[in-house]
Amino acid sequence: MDAKDPLAAKRAEFYLPENTIYLDGNSLGPMTHAAKDRVNAVMTQQWGDDLITSWNKHQWIDLPEIVGEKIAPIIGAGPGQVICCDSVSINLFKVISAALSLNPSRHKVLSQNDNFPTDLYMTQGLENLLGREKCQLVTTKEEDILDSLDESIAVLMLTQVNFRTGRIHDIQSITEKAHQLGILVIWDLAHSAGAIPVKVDEWGVDFAVGCGYKYFNGGPGAPAFVYVAEKHLAALEQPLSGWMGHASPFEFSPDYEKPPSIKQFLCGTPGVVSMSVLDASLDLFTDINIEMIREKSLALTDLFIELVNQEESLNQLEIITPLEHDERGSQIAYCHDDAYAICQALIAEGVIADFRAPNILRFGFSPLFLRYADIEKSVELLIDVVSEKRYDSEQFRSRKAVT
Amino acid sequence: MDAKDPLAAKRAEFYLPENTIYLDGNSLGPMTHAAKDRVNAVMTQQWGDDLITSWNKHQWIDLPEIVGEKIAPIIGAGPGQVICCDSVSINLFKVISAALSLNPSRHKVLSQNDNFPTDLYMTQGLENLLGREKCQLVTTKEEDILDSLDESIAVLMLTQVNFRTGRIHDIQSITEKAHQLGILVIWDLAHSAGAIPVKVDEWGVDFAVGCGYKYFNGGPGAPAFVYVAEKHLAALEQPLSGWMGHASPFEFSPDYEKPPSIKQFLCGTPGVVSMSVLDASLDLFTDINIEMIREKSLALTDLFIELVNQEESLNQLEIITPLEHDERGSQIAYCHDDAYAICQALIAEGVIADFRAPNILRFGFSPLFLRYADIEKSVELLIDVVSEKRYDSEQFRSRKAVT
Repeated sequence: MDAKDPLAAKRAEFYLPENTIYLDGNSLGPMTHAAKDRVNAVMTQQWGDDLITSWNKHQWIDLPEIVGEKIAPIIGAGPGQVICCDSVSINLFKVISAALSLNPSRHKVLSQNDNFPTDLYMTQGLENLLGREKCQLVTTKEEDILDSLDESIAVLMLTQVNFRTGRIHDIQSITEKAHQLGILVIWDLAHSAGAIPVKVDEWGVDFAVGCGYKYFNGGPGAPAFVYVAEKHLAALEQPLSGWMGHASPFEFSPDYEKPPSIKQFLCGTPGVVSMSVLDASLDLFTDINIEMIREKSLALTDLFIELVNQEESLNQLEIITPLEHDERGSQIAYCHDDAYAICQALIAEGVIADFRAPNILRFGFSPLFLRYADIEKSVELLIDVVSEKRYDSEQFRSRKAVT
Repeated sequence: MDAKDPLAAKRAEFYLPENTIYLDGNSLGPMTHAAKDRVNAVMTQQWGDDLITSWNKHQWIDLPEIVGEKIAPIIGAGPGQVICCDSVSINLFKVISAALSLNPSRHKVLSQNDNFPTDLYMTQGLENLLGREKCQLVTTKEEDILDSLDESIAVLMLTQVNFRTGRIHDIQSITEKAHQLGILVIWDLAHSAGAIPVKVDEWGVDFAVGCGYKYFNGGPGAPAFVYVAEKHLAALEQPLSGWMGHASPFEFSPDYEKPPSIKQFLCGTPGVVSMSVLDASLDLFTDINIEMIREKSLALTDLFIELVNQEESLNQLEIITPLEHDERGSQIAYCHDDAYAICQALIAEGVIADFRAPNILRFGFSPLFLRYADIEKSVELLIDVVSEKRYDSEQFRSRKAVT
């Protein structure tokens, strides 16, 4: 399978430590050689030698748009609608506010009760600030979302891939149903952009946000992105109106003036070093397409599931990721009472997975650097860890700050 | 003077291009060798080799607090009150909202009409979002600030050093007067932290924000910081309640729960690469104190002003920076009709200054790397540029995006 893999050559673009199988690229993508080279250039030639003049000379000032335009085709966005800035959380606050500004006769924001927490927290922050008569978070179970849509809802905010279970939402059909009821939609692509095909323009998505440090391999805490459908840019208002999002920032005028473009979603000065890392890593996507990535992702997850299923000693691992291709993201999650300790023991064996409270063992499958042979080897090690109870020690059971 | 300079050895800690006198450290501090070394370590050993485990292994998760605690003594803050995160603009939104939440019977935010624009823009953003009955920006001229304070004002938001003129506000006396009238104060230290002594605790400052990429030499777009007086941490509310600012982020609970600490001002995932650069550069401050820096800053600016005054050909340059020491920041600004072209011509001669619209030529004096000899040389070149009208060409008059 590796011999026939059309993405096989991409692995050489990554720096990957020896004796490690990295099944956590869905949480933090690994370093690319291009990122390393770029950081050296940004530090030495740009910041070091050219100092402040680099804002023009090395286009630092255009970096948020340059990076946005690289992300755009990967999520099916035409030009002028994606910009790189801030964090997913901050960008959520911008788009929730913006969506509410476009739907002023309503005030409810519907989401899923097990959405990634920051999506809920940012909405709660806006709710506390504005009062419930202006912004009210309403949550429902995943299976009740479509039935919960009605004409009292202003905004539907969902995450394409559930961070725990890996289940995919059908953006197109949900967006269509929401629009029929006059509801604007925000899609959080944090756990899918770069791994799952998305067609934000074609599917009529109003707003989307997503992450730079997962499948885009932009480095720890890489800046995020925000997509806004062009038709909304003129009428919306978003409150984080910082100087970099002004129509003419270097006129230093006392009154905020909104630019007509996606630049209105910029706020403060962009983090040039971090954003440059992301910019460099994104070049890995230029000569491939997201369908190729998706095809390999499904083959990798199919193989992993099949190998786990074949092994009787692993039958205590209860899969909570859907088996159907069109419902499965690029990650697989199993429940197990000892999920935390198993995860730590696997890391000690060189297989990096992650744990999500309270009892989820999560494996991410990033197709640009993983080989099918890695899947086979990682399941072998998982079998060793579980069947021999190698995880059953204080060393692996004691909790760390971040897992 | 250089021979007697107690900070002279600090210059060797910086990478400075040859044949360049950098009078723009107030806008973007130059690269430190420590920053370069740290980036290499973060890229290769941390991100590259240790991947996701670095959140624990290399304390990425604690970086915002670690950096905050390094900044704290430089601005006179005791522990547990400063954290590094996001941009100055975003942090302004947090503290304006927080200050209003503590003063709910009032709604006016008073500022200076020529404050740095983002301070005004972020307040305008909040005003648009909440409505003027909940948040109203009121601005006044610098000289009218004290007279404009009254019991209708909820929050006074000022910048310690005026970014155009370099004039310093007396934080202590203004804060005292504001407090007598029940007004909470926000001080923006973007143009002063790391250059001007500040004693936020002793002076009873309620909130402060500041910049990582100017006198702290944290690299282009380095993350910013926020200070909140400990007494306010329990009662305040701030709306950018992202998952990293949750009391227990890795429990992934659906409801935001505010931690009792300054960590409530975190929002999304911190930009580890950029924040590491700042962390490394801040170590330059460990064996010196801000009074030493201030003493040299005043000596540098005194010398520059004196040398310019001595030269008749420079008498078209109209100084707008106060001559009194206690009113002068670490920058000097001159008005001139051809300020833009003069600035560009100076850059061509190797003296990097900057221009601020409409007609300001601005020189910044960062005491950790500048020598008195640099001041002498830069004024000589300024004399050449102005007396010989070297700036009077299309090359220097045509405007670039960022200046």
